[in-house]
Amino acid sequence: MGYTLTEKILGRAAGRSVAPGDVTEVGVDIVAFHDLTGYHVIEVMEKAKMSKIFDREKLVVAFDHLSPPPDPRSAQIQVSIRKFVKEMGIKNFHDNNVGILHQLMVEKYAQPGQVILAADSHTTTSGALGAFAQGMGASDIAAAVITGRTWITVPEPFKVNLRGRPAKWIGGKDVALQLLGEFKADYFNGKSIEVSVEEPHSFPVDYRATVSNMGIEMNADALIFVPDTETVKFIKENRGYEPKLVTPDGDAKYVGTYDIELNRMVPLVAAPHSVDNVKAASEVGNVEVDQVFIGSCTNGRLSDFEIASKILKGRKVRTRTIAIPASYEQFKRAMELGYIKDLVESGAVITYGTCGPCLGGHFGVAGPGEVVLSTSSRNFKGRMGSPDAKVYLSGPAVAAATAATGRITDPRELE
Amino acid sequence: MGYTLTEKILGRAAGRSVAPGDVTEVGVDIVAFHDLTGYHVIEVMEKAKMSKIFDREKLVVAFDHLSPPPDPRSAQIQVSIRKFVKEMGIKNFHDNNVGILHQLMVEKYAQPGQVILAADSHTTTSGALGAFAQGMGASDIAAAVITGRTWITVPEPFKVNLRGRPAKWIGGKDVALQLLGEFKADYFNGKSIEVSVEEPHSFPVDYRATVSNMGIEMNADALIFVPDTETVKFIKENRGYEPKLVTPDGDAKYVGTYDIELNRMVPLVAAPHSVDNVKAASEVGNVEVDQVFIGSCTNGRLSDFEIASKILKGRKVRTRTIAIPASYEQFKRAMELGYIKDLVESGAVITYGTCGPCLGGHFGVAGPGEVVLSTSSRNFKGRMGSPDAKVYLSGPAVAAATAATGRITDPRELE
Repeated sequence: MGYTLTEKILGRAAGRSVAPGDVTEVGVDIVAFHDLTGYHVIEVMEKAKMSKIFDREKLVVAFDHLSPPPDPRSAQIQVSIRKFVKEMGIKNFHDNNVGILHQLMVEKYAQPGQVILAADSHTTTSGALGAFAQGMGASDIAAAVITGRTWITVPEPFKVNLRGRPAKWIGGKDVALQLLGEFKADYFNGKSIEVSVEEPHSFPVDYRATVSNMGIEMNADALIFVPDTETVKFIKENRGYEPKLVTPDGDAKYVGTYDIELNRMVPLVAAPHSVDNVKAASEVGNVEVDQVFIGSCTNGRLSDFEIASKILKGRKVRTRTIAIPASYEQFKRAMELGYIKDLVESGAVITYGTCGPCLGGHFGVAGPGEVVLSTSSRNFKGRMGSPDAKVYLSGPAVAAATAATGRITDPRELE
Repeated sequence: MGYTLTEKILGRAAGRSVAPGDVTEVGVDIVAFHDLTGYHVIEVMEKAKMSKIFDREKLVVAFDHLSPPPDPRSAQIQVSIRKFVKEMGIKNFHDNNVGILHQLMVEKYAQPGQVILAADSHTTTSGALGAFAQGMGASDIAAAVITGRTWITVPEPFKVNLRGRPAKWIGGKDVALQLLGEFKADYFNGKSIEVSVEEPHSFPVDYRATVSNMGIEMNADALIFVPDTETVKFIKENRGYEPKLVTPDGDAKYVGTYDIELNRMVPLVAAPHSVDNVKAASEVGNVEVDQVFIGSCTNGRLSDFEIASKILKGRKVRTRTIAIPASYEQFKRAMELGYIKDLVESGAVITYGTCGPCLGGHFGVAGPGEVVLSTSSRNFKGRMGSPDAKVYLSGPAVAAATAATGRITDPRELE
């Protein structure tokens, strides 16, 4: 019997054939952390009096949560991590505002078939390129930084097929919300989700990164897109080399299968205070919003700003609107293509390469009683600031339409 | 005997002839506050159970210090001020990131001959357009908001003449630092400074706003540029109407006079921890910096980013560099002229319309031991974050050259 993608990746990393439920030690291809969690990783290493790292070429460090520093403590944390990076001779270090870690992993590092660990739950994002990518806590990451190894319980693989081409305004976020609405937030606990795309070019890596990113919201151990022609194209265009593909066998066995007809989808939102409280954008009623945020490792890529600029070009925002491309690269391309100009002229505030308001960190935090529509990943109470704020989640099309009207709006309403 | 500009403005506002040392009540033309101080202004009004305002057309409110909100408390403050603005029917309200209050005063409101009060020390900025503009505390501003009047001790007028045309890379900040280096930070206490420009077009309103802004650092009651052809041109171009000019009489008497030969100046910096610790940029020695900040109500205007882009175009920044045009308008024009592209391609982080790091608020705060070169107004201990950080002040040319080299650099060194 054939192997799933999950089994192939973890089997290769374990050096032996593995099956769901196996607890196995695996070698790790990339270990990463950012400023906020990196501080704790280094603290654990110091407490353990372990100052070596397994492979300085395989460590990635990026400043994003505290970037640029919103307070002296954050600046101090960055100073201490910069010192660690220098002492350890870490090459792949990205200082303030180069990009959000998970976005840089997609742009520069992640490859099909890899095992990737990082000290942040949204590490699953790298699944977009066919990697088994998982977030872990500071102690586990410290151990992986030192040894280059970790242990994993091989998850049960679940298959999702994306069929046809997305309807207008439909992207990765709608697919993620569809899965969350259908299966709820705990169904995929202990499972990995493998996604096959029927028409690869209609669902590019940008969209896939959004779905993989939300894998952790589904409680999945990983959310891996089966590598295809789009994966190859993306890596070749962005990095100049062609990746080796690892794909599941045709007769691999899954614990479940779910098909999504992309052309039948409608724009979705997750209403407060849970990612799986999913509704059609057209059915949430008259909800006025105080802030729209377009950005984050979930939806801060070029295609997101292309969509937002299509909707906001020539319109004025009617609510505080914050647009933050997830990296320098995404911002630069969006600027070159005129999207940033369109967004600024609509009245959106922009910057780049910071997590900012996603986790209520800075640059657009919600006050008590405020309502936020955000393209980010989470909407539990207090996530974006005050516990008395309400956060709705959506993709960039609903977000831009909402910015234009000041109330939650299905983008088709503006056509 | 003739009248100084200070006496003419305050005399008109008092409804009687005034002389230095007179304590007089004056009518106020514009009263303004921002988010951080506005909260206290409203609090004073509430405690006094006074809910009326003297003239809702003459009140200006802008969100800048807490914009976009860096934490839930800031968002809450903004929510409460928005409520006040709505209840009072205040027309001239600028929500998040439209612009820093003092910059909006220059762009939209201030006129020659006006008396302008705002709840922020850098209110002096509006002196650039020939207004007597002074910052006051929340209680005084609350009284002015209610009554449209205040009391003022008429300051002693001091005359500064700017002669010739500025040497290359010399702008408003160098003039301000020259005055601070020469007279130190308390000499102008109880005085108003009136500045005449010999060749008006060589020292435009952008430059003047920087000098007037720093008037409060000189402890002056006001720093007023004598209105001239540049004042008229600026207001006509930006607002479409021609202002009436108020100028001092030729035989007006001043307590002192100081001439600055602009073409003999060299780029200056103020070293830690005082605005009057002024040195030539070429003479500070080898000072490596951790952050460069180009922005604030002091130096966040189009001409500042024109200079910065001239230096940084085609170069890469070698330190964390943050560039924040002081308003939406300044950002939009800088974007249209390609300056923003140049700055972003050099690696600078950008946004617009927020005070951000100037007061250690957010978006680039200094950690312990860090060294900052900033175009903002103040460098006392703790101003930009940690009290163990060191802040140097300069104009945009030194700042951009410093960003390019990573150490404090006279821009002429890069030619």
